[in-house]
Amino acid sequence: MFSDKVMDNLKRASWIRAMFEQGNKLKQEFGAENVYDYSIGNPEVEPPIEVVEAINEIAADDSPGIHRYMPNAGYPFVKKAIAGKLAVQYGMEVPDENICMVCGAAAGLNVVFKSILNPDEEVIIFAPYFAEYKFYVGNGGGMPVVVETKDDFQIDVEAFKSAITYKTKAVLINSPNNPTGVVYSEETLKDMAKVIKEKEKELGINILLISDEPYNEITYDVEKLPVVFQIFEKAVVVNSYSKSLALPGERIGYIAVSPKIESCDKLMAAIIFNNRTLGFVNAPAISQRIVEKAINASVNSDIYKERRDVLYNHLISLGFKCQKPDGAFYLFVKSPVEDELEFVAKAQKYNVLVVPGRGFGRAGYFRMSFCISLDTIKRSLPALDKIASEYF
Amino acid sequence: MFSDKVMDNLKRASWIRAMFEQGNKLKQEFGAENVYDYSIGNPEVEPPIEVVEAINEIAADDSPGIHRYMPNAGYPFVKKAIAGKLAVQYGMEVPDENICMVCGAAAGLNVVFKSILNPDEEVIIFAPYFAEYKFYVGNGGGMPVVVETKDDFQIDVEAFKSAITYKTKAVLINSPNNPTGVVYSEETLKDMAKVIKEKEKELGINILLISDEPYNEITYDVEKLPVVFQIFEKAVVVNSYSKSLALPGERIGYIAVSPKIESCDKLMAAIIFNNRTLGFVNAPAISQRIVEKAINASVNSDIYKERRDVLYNHLISLGFKCQKPDGAFYLFVKSPVEDELEFVAKAQKYNVLVVPGRGFGRAGYFRMSFCISLDTIKRSLPALDKIASEYF
Repeated sequence: MFSDKVMDNLKRASWIRAMFEQGNKLKQEFGAENVYDYSIGNPEVEPPIEVVEAINEIAADDSPGIHRYMPNAGYPFVKKAIAGKLAVQYGMEVPDENICMVCGAAAGLNVVFKSILNPDEEVIIFAPYFAEYKFYVGNGGGMPVVVETKDDFQIDVEAFKSAITYKTKAVLINSPNNPTGVVYSEETLKDMAKVIKEKEKELGINILLISDEPYNEITYDVEKLPVVFQIFEKAVVVNSYSKSLALPGERIGYIAVSPKIESCDKLMAAIIFNNRTLGFVNAPAISQRIVEKAINASVNSDIYKERRDVLYNHLISLGFKCQKPDGAFYLFVKSPVEDELEFVAKAQKYNVLVVPGRGFGRAGYFRMSFCISLDTIKRSLPALDKIASEYF
Repeated sequence: MFSDKVMDNLKRASWIRAMFEQGNKLKQEFGAENVYDYSIGNPEVEPPIEVVEAINEIAADDSPGIHRYMPNAGYPFVKKAIAGKLAVQYGMEVPDENICMVCGAAAGLNVVFKSILNPDEEVIIFAPYFAEYKFYVGNGGGMPVVVETKDDFQIDVEAFKSAITYKTKAVLINSPNNPTGVVYSEETLKDMAKVIKEKEKELGINILLISDEPYNEITYDVEKLPVVFQIFEKAVVVNSYSKSLALPGERIGYIAVSPKIESCDKLMAAIIFNNRTLGFVNAPAISQRIVEKAINASVNSDIYKERRDVLYNHLISLGFKCQKPDGAFYLFVKSPVEDELEFVAKAQKYNVLVVPGRGFGRAGYFRMSFCISLDTIKRSLPALDKIASEYF
């Protein structure tokens, strides 16, 4: 009755979802306030005031037609607002028509892969990775090729180079990174761009750099994120307002295609076609209007910085080993025992929920999502002490 | 650089989109008020007052977390409201957990096809059909098989029977129908159910009936739509509020799986998985809340009935041949010349935009969408007279 492939995928349970369900069970048993749920990246922070004001303005707007279909790529005035912001951030013009509004970054990535991939073409992703990437590439008919990062989770440019074949169609990067919080340096990206250029020439292929940037507004001690449109010849940025405006439930983001790409109008046509036929049709009208009205707003990343510092410093003081995140709201911590499932089970005994690293393609680690309240984090510290005392 | 298949699809231009663009050109040249655009199904009617009130309530709601992720299948309280309404409409219980909120019917159909189809399995669709169906089936990896309907656009049950093979996985029906406005009778559906049962036994296969029902609240002189969950053993309903609440831009609908399906929990798991991994993640939070608050609201179909009557009666009086629609807001009219492209071009000379039937898999006809204002329809009548005078 069902798709065999989907049934097969369902058997390989999502670790994040499994933890989420385990969390609900524990919360029922012990009370929500006694469970420390570091499992999911669902921002506890509320949207900035500009979003609240935008929704009030939209509710008060009685112009006709504001809930009708608009062009599949989104409202022209919304795309214009985003293009204006990108021009400043990127230090270069991004034409409005190179932007397509989408139902969040997950939608954007599915649309881009469907637009570029022929059967069995390869997309390079870096481990540890956001687990859904493999499904997105598969939905587009392609094959994910996993390249391991270095011990500090920075890209190993030599390993990247070795992974490129004549079937390589794209490279997907995610910086600030989920699950590691790492931000790739301009130098690393420039080295990657050089490798891509060499390999394109050698193999007679075209390689698209796809940059998934939902955490671009959540960085710590980072002066400015490198601009992929400046560094790479052929780049596409996929972004979402789920984190920067704290409204993941509203499904809103965009795809921006670099104007440096030859015949980028064809790529845009393919993107808009797939946005329509994959069933998104257009990004939600209200969400688009919110983005336009709150175009310069963003959650205050200092809120997350404080949480990072409390949690990170405490873990380090206990003897845990962890790369200090420069962005996003995750810690990817080395498990004190080789089998991190054993550690995850132990932590659950103290009502602390973390996600096994194998869910992100790197066993021996676990992820803690610190987008929960500072109070919850502080109240969890004694439980972390007890867990640590069993290992250190 | 791009997906060959997508580039190939792009070449086969969408007729609806082509007309939409031609319309914009004509409107620039002659002024919007002098162009009679019957091309697109974008409701000109405003959402009912309950929707406006719902948006005001949502804007005033300062509870924390209302824009966060919720379960991928949607808010439990929204699914509960829909299940309650379906119980009355269907005369049978539909468990909340058999409902998945989706970003409109286009999303729902993509999710369902991805959940059931193995490579090259067949989905039967009936011509004339909504042109996007072929893409949705293809995205799920399946093959659309087109069965012609009778002259009155009712299903030819014998032709349907002949089209079923051991590869048939599903049958997609759409009633009230786009583009014909036809409503399938209970008798026809019961005959189809009988054929499915016979063929399942004969071929040792399972066939899912998928009913795409976005126009279910827009019917004329129809007492009650047949209930597919009652008639078929294995049925899935895909619905959208784009037409019934006139908010197509907000992307909101649902999938309902018949509780009669054995292991329907597995099908739901596959649907929720694909809703997530195809990149929808969840239906927009605000749109879900609107639906719950406006659960008993619907646009007044008498508005459309008046428009249907004015346009239909006038066309018939001029000599055109057309099935009188029982639902939806389209007329599918026989072209007075065999090549309907010739007729479409002629109509454009009088600033009347209609869509060629070949865009819906039936050449020799054209579609007129009467979800435009009554005033526009009335002002278009002299132009229709002039067009008719060239043929009759």
